[in-house]
Amino acid sequence: MAPPYAIGIEAVTDTQAISVTEPLTAESVAARREKSAKFVGGTAAYTTSDFYKNPFLGNKPKAKRWDHYISLESKSRQPSSLKAAAKFLNNPGLISLGGGLPCPEYFPIEGLTFKVPSPPQFTEEETKASGTVVKAGKYDVSEGRSSYDLSIALNYGLGSGSAQLIRFVTEHTEIVCKPPYADWHCALTVGNTSALEQALRIFCERGDYVLSEEYTFASAVETALPLGIKFAAVKMDAEGLLPESMDEVLTNWDVNARGARKPRVLYTVPSGQNPTGATQGTARRHAIYKVAQKHDCYIFEDEPYYFLQMQPYTGPDSPAVPPPKNNEEFLKALIPTYLSMDIDGRVMRMDSFSKVIAPGTRVGWITASEQIVERFIRHNECGVQNPSGLSQVFLYKMLDESWGHAGYLGWLINLRLQYTSRRDAILHACEKFLPKNIVSWNPPAAGMFLWLKVDHTLHPSAKTATPLSIAEIEEQVFLVAIENGVLISRGSWFTAERSGFVAKELFFRATFAAATEEKMAEAIERFGAAVRTCFGVEQHGN
Amino acid sequence: MAPPYAIGIEAVTDTQAISVTEPLTAESVAARREKSAKFVGGTAAYTTSDFYKNPFLGNKPKAKRWDHYISLESKSRQPSSLKAAAKFLNNPGLISLGGGLPCPEYFPIEGLTFKVPSPPQFTEEETKASGTVVKAGKYDVSEGRSSYDLSIALNYGLGSGSAQLIRFVTEHTEIVCKPPYADWHCALTVGNTSALEQALRIFCERGDYVLSEEYTFASAVETALPLGIKFAAVKMDAEGLLPESMDEVLTNWDVNARGARKPRVLYTVPSGQNPTGATQGTARRHAIYKVAQKHDCYIFEDEPYYFLQMQPYTGPDSPAVPPPKNNEEFLKALIPTYLSMDIDGRVMRMDSFSKVIAPGTRVGWITASEQIVERFIRHNECGVQNPSGLSQVFLYKMLDESWGHAGYLGWLINLRLQYTSRRDAILHACEKFLPKNIVSWNPPAAGMFLWLKVDHTLHPSAKTATPLSIAEIEEQVFLVAIENGVLISRGSWFTAERSGFVAKELFFRATFAAATEEKMAEAIERFGAAVRTCFGVEQHGN
Repeated sequence: MAPPYAIGIEAVTDTQAISVTEPLTAESVAARREKSAKFVGGTAAYTTSDFYKNPFLGNKPKAKRWDHYISLESKSRQPSSLKAAAKFLNNPGLISLGGGLPCPEYFPIEGLTFKVPSPPQFTEEETKASGTVVKAGKYDVSEGRSSYDLSIALNYGLGSGSAQLIRFVTEHTEIVCKPPYADWHCALTVGNTSALEQALRIFCERGDYVLSEEYTFASAVETALPLGIKFAAVKMDAEGLLPESMDEVLTNWDVNARGARKPRVLYTVPSGQNPTGATQGTARRHAIYKVAQKHDCYIFEDEPYYFLQMQPYTGPDSPAVPPPKNNEEFLKALIPTYLSMDIDGRVMRMDSFSKVIAPGTRVGWITASEQIVERFIRHNECGVQNPSGLSQVFLYKMLDESWGHAGYLGWLINLRLQYTSRRDAILHACEKFLPKNIVSWNPPAAGMFLWLKVDHTLHPSAKTATPLSIAEIEEQVFLVAIENGVLISRGSWFTAERSGFVAKELFFRATFAAATEEKMAEAIERFGAAVRTCFGVEQHGN
Repeated sequence: MAPPYAIGIEAVTDTQAISVTEPLTAESVAARREKSAKFVGGTAAYTTSDFYKNPFLGNKPKAKRWDHYISLESKSRQPSSLKAAAKFLNNPGLISLGGGLPCPEYFPIEGLTFKVPSPPQFTEEETKASGTVVKAGKYDVSEGRSSYDLSIALNYGLGSGSAQLIRFVTEHTEIVCKPPYADWHCALTVGNTSALEQALRIFCERGDYVLSEEYTFASAVETALPLGIKFAAVKMDAEGLLPESMDEVLTNWDVNARGARKPRVLYTVPSGQNPTGATQGTARRHAIYKVAQKHDCYIFEDEPYYFLQMQPYTGPDSPAVPPPKNNEEFLKALIPTYLSMDIDGRVMRMDSFSKVIAPGTRVGWITASEQIVERFIRHNECGVQNPSGLSQVFLYKMLDESWGHAGYLGWLINLRLQYTSRRDAILHACEKFLPKNIVSWNPPAAGMFLWLKVDHTLHPSAKTATPLSIAEIEEQVFLVAIENGVLISRGSWFTAERSGFVAKELFFRATFAAATEEKMAEAIERFGAAVRTCFGVEQHGN
């Protein structure tokens, strides 16, 4: 079903019959919806990705079962008796005195209005001048104005998230990832950190190890540790996690030495990895997936930065690579996701709106096999429930009713170019201000982070009888940088394997997401000065 | 600091010096803020309730320490290294390349506008006609228009929740509860079910029991069970949980028979308990608190319905009790909270906006001692983080900038009267349509639920050689009610102690929150007919 109205951009008018066996594209969503059953999205409406997927998936295999990996906690989650009674709500004329849902009459909000960019005019100035005003009323659905409204969004929902947003993210996932197995499903989350916590509680028991890049998202490690789950480090190169190292860690896993069974889960950030900025290429991903198959490893694909893949870096003096001409070219330029190569259903992909719309929405989603998503939803029901209805109605109204899938891809192209320009600015500053004999880096292909390697062997204390440890040099540079007026993250904060860790190399992480290009340049200059001070070399420009 | 502007209602103008040792009231908040240090609420600003509380608390005792109760999981939560580095952000002129916070320039929203009631005109019609239009722009703070804006609300925040909303809920809690110990703190949650999950993970280990009312919120039991935590039933009467029964259960706890150590936690819904609708009176609460002290029991005070305390029920033919004349009278009419009598700091109070504003905000808060709130925030940081920024900005703009505390109390009085009218309507329908020799009930003093006791001994099968079990009669009545066109919840769904449970009495739960008064009457008539059918008595009006 097409939404009753579309604001701001042209509604897709191609309702020509298209083959449902053809891959879904942003342009063919409208036709798919036309052919689908009537959309049902009332208060706490039951929903599943199956309602919105290509119905002709018979030739794709079903996902593997993961019963042997599911934790005691997750295994014991039962569907709620009250929610099971919801099946009677379809009886015509039935009056419910069942669920304690407040009456929307008492929601103290009459209407919600917000102004969003009109694709392809995405800048703040353009939005101010010619943005689209999007409205959500309280009873738009019963009054025939929309498929979603405040009376629904502000009431209780189910653990899947709203039908409206599940439809959008399911279609988006099909357009971008085309999962190669049949029974994949989506469920909304309140962000990837929360999703990771729940995923760890589904797959792991206290005492387990999870594999990850040797330097990894500190909050991921800190989410796991209190649960009694440690990270085991896999070596990395400029493209991130090394499949050979993963195979080696798993093959030689010593249960007695580790005091733990062989890891069953790989946690990886394939694109613009935090903190290293590394991005796994296509071949690398296939190789890692193969190792996962060999050891029957499940993969947590944490991809907040997937759409922050940037244009190739061409250096300070070469012309930039022209941007993607259209959505199709853009999607082709993206490195394939693990989900897109997941013939076994061994991947839980975690997507988030935090980096591509705004962190404060607290909305993301997972995609995995039906079995795993069902376990996840059972946990949602006895935990976070679902994301804020205000966030859901904002995202739905903007992404679906106003922009549509095509407009959203346009927004993502725009972000790609914005981050390209920021990444280029920080790299130009590094070229200019850092002592290249001491500090080295790989131009990141995605994400928000630049990983700076500092050659600790050149530190003046190295030649003395009492050389500083790498940790001590790290602290020295960090503190001098603070004195110089720049805060930069210490590499050791991102250590995956924390107990008994002794650094062998010295790193710092800089983000190019936050500061303006001018401030970034100034900050890198200050950091360069700090390194020069600590390493006893002449200051830049002196 | 007073907010730079107030929209919609008169700003409180009494800036007369008031004694800070006097109890805080809705009316004295503005004066308190005037005397406080300048409000700081930028992006991911550090905040604590201490900033907003009465500074003269020296004569109040500090809370007890709970080290001996904190779980292995919670004990091992460490503050994040990255977040610790945030202390340097106060250095003047410092440029941060530290945290990966996206630039608000890329949040695709220009401004947010919503229409809310103008106190004391709270109905939908009045709001439509003369509601207050509240605006949140992207850069209102830097442009001097507000203390909160979209650039802050839509970025990452800290695990406490925003400074803006922590200030409001801290003041509100002080106005309503006046906690009698010094170091109480608030932290935002994404709702009480999520807060309960986190609280259980702080205080319990797999294998533990938690005490609760013998019939209790089904989702609470279902949140605990997968964690390996069972509920142990405490008997109830018309006022809810019986302190004598609680004392008896704890005193006679048989570690071997139960296979578990003595419970350390009481989970209770003191007002409008779900499902029984029972409300503990003041003396009852004091008696229960005393038993908790005797056995060193910690109390989870789950209070979504606290402000759904209603006017006394006077029956179908007596005049209604006049509504509270003002906020002071309203607050006095409320039964004191456990938090207000908590001299030990042994209570975690869980408040929620779900029942008093809207469930879809997914915002609530806990109040407990600093030690416990700090553990809670550590978990937030590696989990849900904080509620949606859109929800936070909506609540802040309406509750703080537009209504103020006095206006919010006015809204709560309005809700009290609305629910009184709904409760009275369902009770009148019960008086009229239910066979009173079979079905009995207590008029609820708070909440959304009416608990109907059905005398199973009068079932026709009772006199036969093969009497139906209570569970079978329950199913029969439930299904005949469905056939008659009414869904009503089965009492057994709310059993606290599930393993080996055999019902001794027969109950059904009806909500008066959702349906219109006419529909409720019709539904109760249908339920009455179902009971009469099952119990073989003449139909009403036949």
